[in-house]
Amino acid sequence: MSLSLPGTYNRRMTEVLRQIHARAVTAAARGTVASYIPALSLADPGALGLAVVDADGCTCAAGDSGTRFTVQSISKVLALAYVMTERGEDAVFSRVGKEPTGDPFNSIIRLETSAGQKPFNPLINAGAIVVSSLMPGSTPAEAIGGFLAFTGRLLGRSDVSLDESVYASEKATAARNRSIAWFLKELGLVPADVEDTLDVYFRQCAVLVDAVDLARIGAELSLDGVDPVSGARVLDARTARVCKSLMVTCGLYDGSGEFAVDVGVPAKSGVGGGILATVRDRMGIGVYGPALDAHGNSAAGLEALRLLSAELDLRVL
Amino acid sequence: MSLSLPGTYNRRMTEVLRQIHARAVTAAARGTVASYIPALSLADPGALGLAVVDADGCTCAAGDSGTRFTVQSISKVLALAYVMTERGEDAVFSRVGKEPTGDPFNSIIRLETSAGQKPFNPLINAGAIVVSSLMPGSTPAEAIGGFLAFTGRLLGRSDVSLDESVYASEKATAARNRSIAWFLKELGLVPADVEDTLDVYFRQCAVLVDAVDLARIGAELSLDGVDPVSGARVLDARTARVCKSLMVTCGLYDGSGEFAVDVGVPAKSGVGGGILATVRDRMGIGVYGPALDAHGNSAAGLEALRLLSAELDLRVL
Amino acid sequence: MSLSLPGTYNRRMTEVLRQIHARAVTAAARGTVASYIPALSLADPGALGLAVVDADGCTCAAGDSGTRFTVQSISKVLALAYVMTERGEDAVFSRVGKEPTGDPFNSIIRLETSAGQKPFNPLINAGAIVVSSLMPGSTPAEAIGGFLAFTGRLLGRSDVSLDESVYASEKATAARNRSIAWFLKELGLVPADVEDTLDVYFRQCAVLVDAVDLARIGAELSLDGVDPVSGARVLDARTARVCKSLMVTCGLYDGSGEFAVDVGVPAKSGVGGGILATVRDRMGIGVYGPALDAHGNSAAGLEALRLLSAELDLRVL
Amino acid sequence: MSLSLPGTYNRRMTEVLRQIHARAVTAAARGTVASYIPALSLADPGALGLAVVDADGCTCAAGDSGTRFTVQSISKVLALAYVMTERGEDAVFSRVGKEPTGDPFNSIIRLETSAGQKPFNPLINAGAIVVSSLMPGSTPAEAIGGFLAFTGRLLGRSDVSLDESVYASEKATAARNRSIAWFLKELGLVPADVEDTLDVYFRQCAVLVDAVDLARIGAELSLDGVDPVSGARVLDARTARVCKSLMVTCGLYDGSGEFAVDVGVPAKSGVGGGILATVRDRMGIGVYGPALDAHGNSAAGLEALRLLSAELDLRVL
Repeated sequence: MSLSLPGTYNRRMTEVLRQIHARAVTAAARGTVASYIPALSLADPGALGLAVVDADGCTCAAGDSGTRFTVQSISKVLALAYVMTERGEDAVFSRVGKEPTGDPFNSIIRLETSAGQKPFNPLINAGAIVVSSLMPGSTPAEAIGGFLAFTGRLLGRSDVSLDESVYASEKATAARNRSIAWFLKELGLVPADVEDTLDVYFRQCAVLVDAVDLARIGAELSLDGVDPVSGARVLDARTARVCKSLMVTCGLYDGSGEFAVDVGVPAKSGVGGGILATVRDRMGIGVYGPALDAHGNSAAGLEALRLLSAELDLRVL
Repeated sequence: MSLSLPGTYNRRMTEVLRQIHARAVTAAARGTVASYIPALSLADPGALGLAVVDADGCTCAAGDSGTRFTVQSISKVLALAYVMTERGEDAVFSRVGKEPTGDPFNSIIRLETSAGQKPFNPLINAGAIVVSSLMPGSTPAEAIGGFLAFTGRLLGRSDVSLDESVYASEKATAARNRSIAWFLKELGLVPADVEDTLDVYFRQCAVLVDAVDLARIGAELSLDGVDPVSGARVLDARTARVCKSLMVTCGLYDGSGEFAVDVGVPAKSGVGGGILATVRDRMGIGVYGPALDAHGNSAAGLEALRLLSAELDLRVL
Repeated sequence: MSLSLPGTYNRRMTEVLRQIHARAVTAAARGTVASYIPALSLADPGALGLAVVDADGCTCAAGDSGTRFTVQSISKVLALAYVMTERGEDAVFSRVGKEPTGDPFNSIIRLETSAGQKPFNPLINAGAIVVSSLMPGSTPAEAIGGFLAFTGRLLGRSDVSLDESVYASEKATAARNRSIAWFLKELGLVPADVEDTLDVYFRQCAVLVDAVDLARIGAELSLDGVDPVSGARVLDARTARVCKSLMVTCGLYDGSGEFAVDVGVPAKSGVGGGILATVRDRMGIGVYGPALDAHGNSAAGLEALRLLSAELDLRVL
Repeated sequence: MSLSLPGTYNRRMTEVLRQIHARAVTAAARGTVASYIPALSLADPGALGLAVVDADGCTCAAGDSGTRFTVQSISKVLALAYVMTERGEDAVFSRVGKEPTGDPFNSIIRLETSAGQKPFNPLINAGAIVVSSLMPGSTPAEAIGGFLAFTGRLLGRSDVSLDESVYASEKATAARNRSIAWFLKELGLVPADVEDTLDVYFRQCAVLVDAVDLARIGAELSLDGVDPVSGARVLDARTARVCKSLMVTCGLYDGSGEFAVDVGVPAKSGVGGGILATVRDRMGIGVYGPALDAHGNSAAGLEALRLLSAELDLRVL
């Protein structure tokens, strides 16, 4: 049962986005740009970009929707989709759980105390590092090359690149992720070389996208894997559903529960300021706002999604 | 944008439920009836009841849909709705988190290690005990009396009662819940007397419902608090949304993640064999099947929900 | 090889204690009397009592050595000795570990995460509660009666009693210990009724002793179970050794490590202000000083033991 | 009060060691040689070497007392003594606790959950890695050079070397220690480069010693830092005491508690099969027996120490 959108939606969407941009942009003042690496701290704290790709493949946008930023943790969804596509669901979920967790995104204690001794799910750092280690390729360059090509197919463009400065900075400062990766190695969950795996992980986090890119991926997820722009299937339906299920339970770190109440759709955020959201059968949404709240989610982006959900009755819960 | 159900849904629903009952009932053989207290172990392991209450207030059912069973953990949703209604959202969420958790349903370690030292959410035992302690009333009898009256308003009947044998058995054997309750007392999160609070908690778990009851509550949640049978608002919209958001992230214990992928709607299970599910704007679903899988969820009930979700395209994710 | 003390020790011991009392009593100002129950907060914060019972059975004392106070956690050593005597080493150590721990004295997390799921040792609260549940007797009164008679044999007096006010207060406020006891019940480590066990535990903590009493017990431990005053064996040698071994590793809570460096003998403290110390083949030492440091150990008592260890070269490490 | 040894001790010591060797060597059959790296697995499982250096500087030995083996975890005591000597007590204990712990020797969970977020003590892996990072020197070669020179002064020989094969194997396989080291880096407790620090740590563990070497160090500790062979002070008294205090509480991993009861002296073991023990004012003892029990301690070595403690009444507890 595909619910195609009433035409009125498409006609007024750009106007809706413009109005919401105007109302939400002030919320950026409640947040702070990530500063744990210099390259991130340069972002304009007042920026806000909004984009929607609907089920008919129409794109609408407002504000800084063309500004590129590093995808960061949103790459965990893309990497999961890539590895499920290339190696199958079992290759991932024999090593990583599928359960939600309210924990901060990179705890080791969960690995030591959980009975099964595997990361809770692919959207926390530990699980994402396992996923990165499963990307096909005998070198980090090959692995990331495949990932960039896959991402390019989702985005409908061949020029997907990464921010070398962000990548280099993250690689140089990631003591906690190194600790997690070596613990995963000890547990036998990282087949590849640890430093190579981390290299892939840091590179995937540094991939550059804009709000329109995120909206298109969201639209593909909303249609269980069919790209409404090209009409082509870009993801297996099961893969899309696994991604959305994880997003709804732990896509926004410790703000996931509140987001589910306030917005009510699957979403994933990154410390680069992006949020990817997806509304079953209706649309994908991409937002960009680099000023982050205390949970690490875009402050203005969250406000925009709250307003958009109310305005268009997007909630699925 | 309210999506009213196509008329064909109502016309063919009973037939759909009958067919799904026939296909799912064999899955009961994969489960085992809970036996930690004698009163539960008497249930018929092969039983399976299905019921739907749709957005127009029509009820359809199949199998053992009129068999009463103890509501068990599903009461956590009802108690949360009751206390939010009586005392407001802040009274609950100043003492309990709103975040998902993949943990087994009654861990103390989370209380000791979490920064805020409060239970992760109202659907794990620790959080539910805090909620029980917040029910109005100066005695357990008053507190549970108010809860039964509230539940009666949701169910449209005044004869809501509880299974005294199950209540007495649970009260006599609940060492772990007592440990949790005293730890919560130590943390200052249980305002009432500990034994009184546990008495309320054990009683609320022993409330008797059938699959049709669960479907009606599910329908009320699906319509953000309006009862489609009576047309009356029985819950505040915000309360309904908070309940649904928590259900989607941790309603089925360690099976929550898999359920989100396979069925894709908010739901809550209990060890009595019940599952309450809710589909935004469309329907509530109640199932009863006392043979449980390894996660403590109804084996045949899960199978029925999987089939129903696929047949009616219910997934919201 | 029993090393009898040179005669000069006995002759000058009282003078040594007097001098050390004068130097150490000012350290009381660095501490604070326990106030978690009213009955404890009434103690004189400036009090300091010192006593030594040497290997020849001679008793020397200084300051407030005759002031009675509640034995509190020092009872964990006595209860362990009692249950080992009555029921054997295996009855205890099949349910409780023998390993040191640097944890705060009452953590549950250790129970949940340790592989064996039993308390680390009998000197932390969890282990002590298990020990209390093993005291012979079909009622708390019988159990505590046996314990008081045993303690009387160690002290050479038949009038051992307890502070009913302290007992009643502790029983009324012990949420955390109740939580621990119920968790132990869940693990199958508390054979007796939980409230009965806690009743015994709170009563044993309220037994009244003075510094001379503690010194005599220390002397009995120093001689591997022989009372130098009466010449009678009051403890099995193995029991005495187990007690001393545990005391040296975890007798002073989080101050155990520093105490081992500074004083270097087995000891056990209580929040009533007492410390029991024992020096192999040479002497037992009892101190009383109710003003406690941040770790819950007598501030002036610790200072006195540091000075005494240096003066008499007591360290065994 | 220095207790010089009766002359009979020296005269009969060699005979005592011979007899104990004969009785204890069969216990080797209860153990297994460490096999996590190939170089260790080559040791003769039936080997047993015993040595004593007494307070007069006399050395007695029996069995395989001249066989060299890697010092492994016993190096944690030497490294602590070295860094305390070079940089002072505060440099160490501002970053590492002084408290005992019954945990397995390399847990991260303790780092995440302990309030102070520092390793419990310098004898667990996490604490030892911090100590290694504090060795003076701008390169691993300089750091380990200083450590080898310091160890040479304790041993009275200039040819202290390490087993390059063991070092290389440990360095190649130490996922868990790498995880710990990076977590410590994250906590700000490792000033030096992580890989450099691990390099130093793996090298110090591979230092080659024999039982006589360990006995000499034990004698130096027993005399609070004076070498009875040369008469020179080789350690500060406070440093020696800190080392002994930690050894008594956590020197034998999870076997520390049982060892304190059975043998009753400070000791430290390593998976190379060595145990270093020290008896206040009387002697140091070194044993070598590469077949390990379930806790990772030399099976025959423990048996020999039990017999020796009983025969010579060595226990200090």
